[in-house]
Amino acid sequence: MPVQLDNHLLEEILAQVRPLIGQGQVADYIPALAEVQADKLGIAVCTVDGDLFTAGDAQERFSIQSISKVLSLVLAMGRYEEAEIWQRVGKEPSGQPFNSLVQLELEQGKPRNPFINAGALVVCDMLQTRLSAPRQRMLEVVRQLADQPDLAYDARIAKSEFEHSARNAAIAWLMKSFGNFDNDVITVLQNYFHYCALKMSCAELAKTFLFLANQGQTLQHDEPLITPQQTRQINALMVTSGMYDGAGEFAYRVGMPGKSGVGGGIIAIVPHEMSIAVWCPELDASGNSLAGTAALEILAKRIGRSIF
Amino acid sequence: MPVQLDNHLLEEILAQVRPLIGQGQVADYIPALAEVQADKLGIAVCTVDGDLFTAGDAQERFSIQSISKVLSLVLAMGRYEEAEIWQRVGKEPSGQPFNSLVQLELEQGKPRNPFINAGALVVCDMLQTRLSAPRQRMLEVVRQLADQPDLAYDARIAKSEFEHSARNAAIAWLMKSFGNFDNDVITVLQNYFHYCALKMSCAELAKTFLFLANQGQTLQHDEPLITPQQTRQINALMVTSGMYDGAGEFAYRVGMPGKSGVGGGIIAIVPHEMSIAVWCPELDASGNSLAGTAALEILAKRIGRSIF
Amino acid sequence: MPVQLDNHLLEEILAQVRPLIGQGQVADYIPALAEVQADKLGIAVCTVDGDLFTAGDAQERFSIQSISKVLSLVLAMGRYEEAEIWQRVGKEPSGQPFNSLVQLELEQGKPRNPFINAGALVVCDMLQTRLSAPRQRMLEVVRQLADQPDLAYDARIAKSEFEHSARNAAIAWLMKSFGNFDNDVITVLQNYFHYCALKMSCAELAKTFLFLANQGQTLQHDEPLITPQQTRQINALMVTSGMYDGAGEFAYRVGMPGKSGVGGGIIAIVPHEMSIAVWCPELDASGNSLAGTAALEILAKRIGRSIF
Amino acid sequence: MPVQLDNHLLEEILAQVRPLIGQGQVADYIPALAEVQADKLGIAVCTVDGDLFTAGDAQERFSIQSISKVLSLVLAMGRYEEAEIWQRVGKEPSGQPFNSLVQLELEQGKPRNPFINAGALVVCDMLQTRLSAPRQRMLEVVRQLADQPDLAYDARIAKSEFEHSARNAAIAWLMKSFGNFDNDVITVLQNYFHYCALKMSCAELAKTFLFLANQGQTLQHDEPLITPQQTRQINALMVTSGMYDGAGEFAYRVGMPGKSGVGGGIIAIVPHEMSIAVWCPELDASGNSLAGTAALEILAKRIGRSIF
Repeated sequence: MPVQLDNHLLEEILAQVRPLIGQGQVADYIPALAEVQADKLGIAVCTVDGDLFTAGDAQERFSIQSISKVLSLVLAMGRYEEAEIWQRVGKEPSGQPFNSLVQLELEQGKPRNPFINAGALVVCDMLQTRLSAPRQRMLEVVRQLADQPDLAYDARIAKSEFEHSARNAAIAWLMKSFGNFDNDVITVLQNYFHYCALKMSCAELAKTFLFLANQGQTLQHDEPLITPQQTRQINALMVTSGMYDGAGEFAYRVGMPGKSGVGGGIIAIVPHEMSIAVWCPELDASGNSLAGTAALEILAKRIGRSIF
Repeated sequence: MPVQLDNHLLEEILAQVRPLIGQGQVADYIPALAEVQADKLGIAVCTVDGDLFTAGDAQERFSIQSISKVLSLVLAMGRYEEAEIWQRVGKEPSGQPFNSLVQLELEQGKPRNPFINAGALVVCDMLQTRLSAPRQRMLEVVRQLADQPDLAYDARIAKSEFEHSARNAAIAWLMKSFGNFDNDVITVLQNYFHYCALKMSCAELAKTFLFLANQGQTLQHDEPLITPQQTRQINALMVTSGMYDGAGEFAYRVGMPGKSGVGGGIIAIVPHEMSIAVWCPELDASGNSLAGTAALEILAKRIGRSIF
Repeated sequence: MPVQLDNHLLEEILAQVRPLIGQGQVADYIPALAEVQADKLGIAVCTVDGDLFTAGDAQERFSIQSISKVLSLVLAMGRYEEAEIWQRVGKEPSGQPFNSLVQLELEQGKPRNPFINAGALVVCDMLQTRLSAPRQRMLEVVRQLADQPDLAYDARIAKSEFEHSARNAAIAWLMKSFGNFDNDVITVLQNYFHYCALKMSCAELAKTFLFLANQGQTLQHDEPLITPQQTRQINALMVTSGMYDGAGEFAYRVGMPGKSGVGGGIIAIVPHEMSIAVWCPELDASGNSLAGTAALEILAKRIGRSIF
Repeated sequence: MPVQLDNHLLEEILAQVRPLIGQGQVADYIPALAEVQADKLGIAVCTVDGDLFTAGDAQERFSIQSISKVLSLVLAMGRYEEAEIWQRVGKEPSGQPFNSLVQLELEQGKPRNPFINAGALVVCDMLQTRLSAPRQRMLEVVRQLADQPDLAYDARIAKSEFEHSARNAAIAWLMKSFGNFDNDVITVLQNYFHYCALKMSCAELAKTFLFLANQGQTLQHDEPLITPQQTRQINALMVTSGMYDGAGEFAYRVGMPGKSGVGGGIIAIVPHEMSIAVWCPELDASGNSLAGTAALEILAKRIGRSIF
């Protein structure tokens, strides 16, 4: 029997998953991520009616990392025709780790989807072509969506990412060799790493991504950010490709469109109802927040929500 | 503005997609499939209230092929613990053609999911272990679900598949070499090909798969076929892996869990509402019915249904 | 300064490499191979003048395994036109483990060379087509070449190989799916495993393969077994593909055409001068006899022989 | 019956292979290479006694491209311990196209051998670490070996290569991501492309590479350039990996260590006797000079030379 959504329920769920802390692995490929406290745990739910429920460290900001890939796709959707986007990046799950070059070479430099590194880099390359100040523009968008004018990039993380960017540079150059990368590699990598280095809290993330539960409509604007159809399309891409090589497992267990980041954050969507953000830094073998996924699984069961 | 579902709407939709016939390719790897008339086109929708709407060749039987993979998984779910199944087959999309051995070798003989050939063969291997007459049992199940006591295997197609079974034999033997295949290869292949050679009409398919739209409950039985949670799990697997290497595109365009077969059939589910079956033999590059997918896309838009 | 070849030199070399025993791994994929004594060590050299030098366990028979792949190719070369052979199997090193299916699938069922399992299976398939009794014929050939009428297959090993043949069956079926395998899979596998299960001693191997050092001419016949050009071709294939994924290392260290088997035997050729056979069951990471390779490396240096 | 080597024989051979011109493909990935006259054809042979025989366009300089990979390895062998080199690059044939990233990723950034692009880039990276002026040093070496003080890089080709360097940049960055690349990517790429852009004639190449036929001894110096053992090692690597993915075919047909470049040049070695250089710009499917390979095959037969 589904229960009512409130702060108390969220606290109960966090208590239930907290024992999982210690079973995962904090991302440590850059020092700035490795030093995050492993026992952080937060959750926030924003409903289409504008209610916000939170528990735990829901107000503490963390590095959103690959969750930003959804935002860059949204920006691109507003500046490119549908066909222009999908001729440069696919819509299929990769069946591979998120940063592999194997498939990218076999498929002639066309990334499988916009939520793996290669795909997000292509999207950033597209933004670089059409936006005069892509980093500033992203900030404006998230500040509005989250209703927080002080949202900012963590310059130290962005710098650290850039200093460890060899693999992503290889990916970008490989796409360039196939003619699927137009701008200067370093410039685009810098943008990409800044997007990844956005710091946001669960509460801010839930508010920011509410439009995906609301047919593209934000709470702040009269004009929708994207169309209802584009909203469904993004949700579809999140279900099939949003959780690295763990999308199938996430759909099976949680049953919602979701996108995770190696900072330990996940956003999930209940279409027409709510957006959910969780944060717990330790990751499972696929690179998704271990306790975060468990919290979403329990929440889905408790409130009786699933797209399936 | 969503419209009402009725036979007339379905006829309209078929008229709209009929011009696509000629742009795809009928499966021709066995003669028995190649000789199907390319301009067959049918659709059937069954609602949880028991209403059935149809148009076109909805009463004509065809070879359901890989659609049967969902049914074998359902049978296995009733006979094995959850963990027993998923230690032998994964839940992730493959990012590869449906009959590739590359990934299967790299991943030590554990197929990516139960809807690619390797995965379905493992499931059939499991059924062979626990069922005394796996072919007869499958027939009983579909005859009940479709309420058609004369449903049968097309022996000629099963025989023809078996005579062209080298690739599937290679897959089975490769899994055996990794210890993930228990029974005699030929026996299991025979069962597998018979399941693929089931002949059903769109109307029968829609009725058969209604339980996936109805939390596992069939119209014919008091007892549910599977639990509500298992129902959500199967729908989740269909979204991420049900359409070969075109699952992302199908989710993006249609927005429903679906499973296709190279005979040109597709079943799709609107959870809590209806099951849909389409049939048009010509396939797109991913092996999914070209006009069938288009019909589902239009239907989804017209009736305003999408899980996203 | 090169030294004279004699039994004493060979004994010295064996003493030098004996300490390596313990650093490798005896092949254990079938019990019959696993139970071989790990400290067996033998060497035999046969010169084109007919001299035979030996040391250690040079008279003890062991399972020649993949060394037989050279013999099946020789048989095929006598029964097929050059072009007929090389349209079905390539001449290039594989850059892969000896029993991988990955490359075989990507390259449409045409094995890279006749000395990996897939390639040898194709050659056996060709022999099955043209020989009425392929197993008997092979025995006749090696009995004559080794001048030992009692050479025989080890039926127990052949049976054991067949019982563990899943991987090779997968390879054969995969080639069949691409139209590159004509005969019954089980029949050809049985022949293949019998060839592998030939038991020969170092002394017998050195004598048997002398024709590769002697422009195709055997010591026993007036007629050459193969032409001088075919001899050069086989030696070339052994250099580039004879040592599994360790051919480069072997050429770099030893500098002779060679072919190894997982039984721990290696044959090596000094063109125009001598054939050499070593045996020591423990294998290195590439599957080649560890102490055997070392013995060949030292021998090459001591007698100042290298094709480079 | 082998014939005497002289200019007349070489002219005969060129006449015999000239009809093959038109069946290959001039490398066209950069304009500077594409504009070479396709009907250039030259050959030069240098014996260890110092005799030089030539025919055709043997005095015309062309871009030596990957032939330079042997020279960079020679330079590295003089500046690094054997183990230092081979822990960063392997000795095995790749079984892949020369510029693939697939294998490089699977094998953790360690290139298969020093004669594919990745391997040569690692070698150039090593030279950059130990040489103060790697480009100048290479020039000094080849000028001495060829006895031609005016040998130079073709700056236009080097520049053009650099402008089309995306694939090689991807390779270098991928190795950097695995910790197998120490210096600035652009600096090393520039050196690498300059080495490739060396312009030399067949006569100059034959003289330059004579040391590989002469146990490391050059005609110009008292001190050998490399040791006899290093000479054998390089010849071994050329046989197993010198002809891209056509090494097996080249060994089978020609039977000599060889290294080719996409400029259409090939050098080949008859140990203890002679070095041979051929040039004809059209390439076969593996990227080796089509008529050049044919000329070497005929020459080998006519003079009765083969390492096998």
